[in-house]
Amino acid sequence: MEKIIRLAHGSGGKLTQQLIRDVFFPCFNNQFLAPLDDSAVVNIDGIRVAFTTDSYVVKPIFFPGGDIGKLSVSGTINDLAVMGARPAFISCSLIIEEGFSLSDLKRIVSSIQHTAEETGVNIVTGDTKVVEKRGADSIFINTSGIGIVPAEVNLGIDRIRVGDKIIVNGTVGDHSVAILSQREELGFEVSLESDCAPIYDLISKLNGNWDSVKFMRDPTRGGVAGVLNEIVQNRGFGIELWERSIPFQEETLAVCELLGMDPLYLANEGKVILFVESEKAQDILNIFKAHPMGKRSSIIGEVVAGPKGKVYLVTSIGTHRVVDMLVEDQLPRIC
Amino acid sequence: MEKIIRLAHGSGGKLTQQLIRDVFFPCFNNQFLAPLDDSAVVNIDGIRVAFTTDSYVVKPIFFPGGDIGKLSVSGTINDLAVMGARPAFISCSLIIEEGFSLSDLKRIVSSIQHTAEETGVNIVTGDTKVVEKRGADSIFINTSGIGIVPAEVNLGIDRIRVGDKIIVNGTVGDHSVAILSQREELGFEVSLESDCAPIYDLISKLNGNWDSVKFMRDPTRGGVAGVLNEIVQNRGFGIELWERSIPFQEETLAVCELLGMDPLYLANEGKVILFVESEKAQDILNIFKAHPMGKRSSIIGEVVAGPKGKVYLVTSIGTHRVVDMLVEDQLPRIC
Repeated sequence: MEKIIRLAHGSGGKLTQQLIRDVFFPCFNNQFLAPLDDSAVVNIDGIRVAFTTDSYVVKPIFFPGGDIGKLSVSGTINDLAVMGARPAFISCSLIIEEGFSLSDLKRIVSSIQHTAEETGVNIVTGDTKVVEKRGADSIFINTSGIGIVPAEVNLGIDRIRVGDKIIVNGTVGDHSVAILSQREELGFEVSLESDCAPIYDLISKLNGNWDSVKFMRDPTRGGVAGVLNEIVQNRGFGIELWERSIPFQEETLAVCELLGMDPLYLANEGKVILFVESEKAQDILNIFKAHPMGKRSSIIGEVVAGPKGKVYLVTSIGTHRVVDMLVEDQLPRIC
Repeated sequence: MEKIIRLAHGSGGKLTQQLIRDVFFPCFNNQFLAPLDDSAVVNIDGIRVAFTTDSYVVKPIFFPGGDIGKLSVSGTINDLAVMGARPAFISCSLIIEEGFSLSDLKRIVSSIQHTAEETGVNIVTGDTKVVEKRGADSIFINTSGIGIVPAEVNLGIDRIRVGDKIIVNGTVGDHSVAILSQREELGFEVSLESDCAPIYDLISKLNGNWDSVKFMRDPTRGGVAGVLNEIVQNRGFGIELWERSIPFQEETLAVCELLGMDPLYLANEGKVILFVESEKAQDILNIFKAHPMGKRSSIIGEVVAGPKGKVYLVTSIGTHRVVDMLVEDQLPRIC
């Protein structure tokens, strides 16, 4: 194992997994800590409460389609929502670099509140630390969240079966491309915006259909490929993806071609991947398509008997290729 | 109002108050957000749940008596404990500078786990972000926590009455002095250690006496003076402190004299200030003194009719002086 922390340890790829397995798990091991879930689900006097945390270090802090404030609240709402929880309370802790503009801070705080309001959650507690100039890169935000898991929700990787269909609620990779377009060194422009948004409202439309929904994840760092690889790891099934069925913005594909990136690893901040019972997949797709945040929803693949533990892509021209987990991300500081 | 964020905005003094009042409150205003409390108390299906968050940016990250890991867990446990809550679940989110030593990380993670275990709380969810070299100062840790408030606990500033006694569980200012002693530019050495520790076990000894306990706070940033000023602000009472009764380590007083600092503003990370019914003050003091973390507990003052909204100190030589809230802290990055 390496002796220092590298950027890739925070990428959501293989090195992140290794860090979790070698450093955090041996220490924090307890019944609630679930590596593959976006929130812990704890029991408080018989009530299932989802609890999650994320720190946001995105650069730049303002980007097409959002800002670090919107991102930090959306991200935590989404981590709760993909556990089937109703997001209820959010905390917000800021680390600010000395000299940061007060008007930018106001803009970010108002964006935080606006995003929270949209989903009906309250920012109930917070903290502010200020560090010296060059002690932090402008502003970092941590949000933690509490959500209530309704009794009818029963999600778990162990419920996934061969034949289950995989659904995504829209175009893949928009967030990474929007961030990329703002990095001066890359020098290109796109009209595309980040998909950064809370998706609880969309997910709440699954009420009444929870029996058919096996598992959900939001494909943020590491993208669709990263999340599916985490799910399939050491399992008795494989995943087949259909390239033709995966929705992309044209600009995303153009940027990926230009920069030699694979769009399946790009981050998303307003997307959910669902594993659903095959017979109900079309019904759930229809529910999603009827919602503004799910218009371009698509069934992108299915759970297959083998090769076990692998994700593979059936390409547009009919070939098969394994979609592995990356060792490091294609782009740091995207969230 | 100033146009940029200064270090003092994170000091816990007047500028922090102003930031909260002018920027956060107008946005985040809701029934749960209580500026004076260390945690929000929310209601989940009839259960009172305390929820708190704090980011830790302490420098240096290893100091006499603790490290950023122990501090981050103690701080959140204490923020829950002073609400009368039993700390239950903690989240832990790291922002790490590229190049950080893996062995230091392991040491910190093990310190986090050790401190959590001591109080019987679980680290149930986490996150790791890595930023480029010089994008952050070594490591920042956010912990958020959930605690359960027992039915018999009824704490609130509105329960404070003239005549109530004020208790602290030991020597004041140890944490700041321990941090100070490690800052190279100051060039002095002390044998004193930070008081950094979880104090839930001590506070839990109040069970059976909650009727007599009106309000609690932990005097971290801003110190005893900062916390008491926050409590007294705009209230119909004042606070009288008795210099002779406030416990200090001798070294703390020596360092303060040397550097021209007032020990009442120094930060503490294992202390609680209690407002208790006068008739029960001695009983509660005895309970505290019987505990290893409360051996040097003392009744340090009382709530007085006036001057309203002010904290004043009766000095050892019998004079009175007002103890105001500082505009900026005497020392940044102490927690």
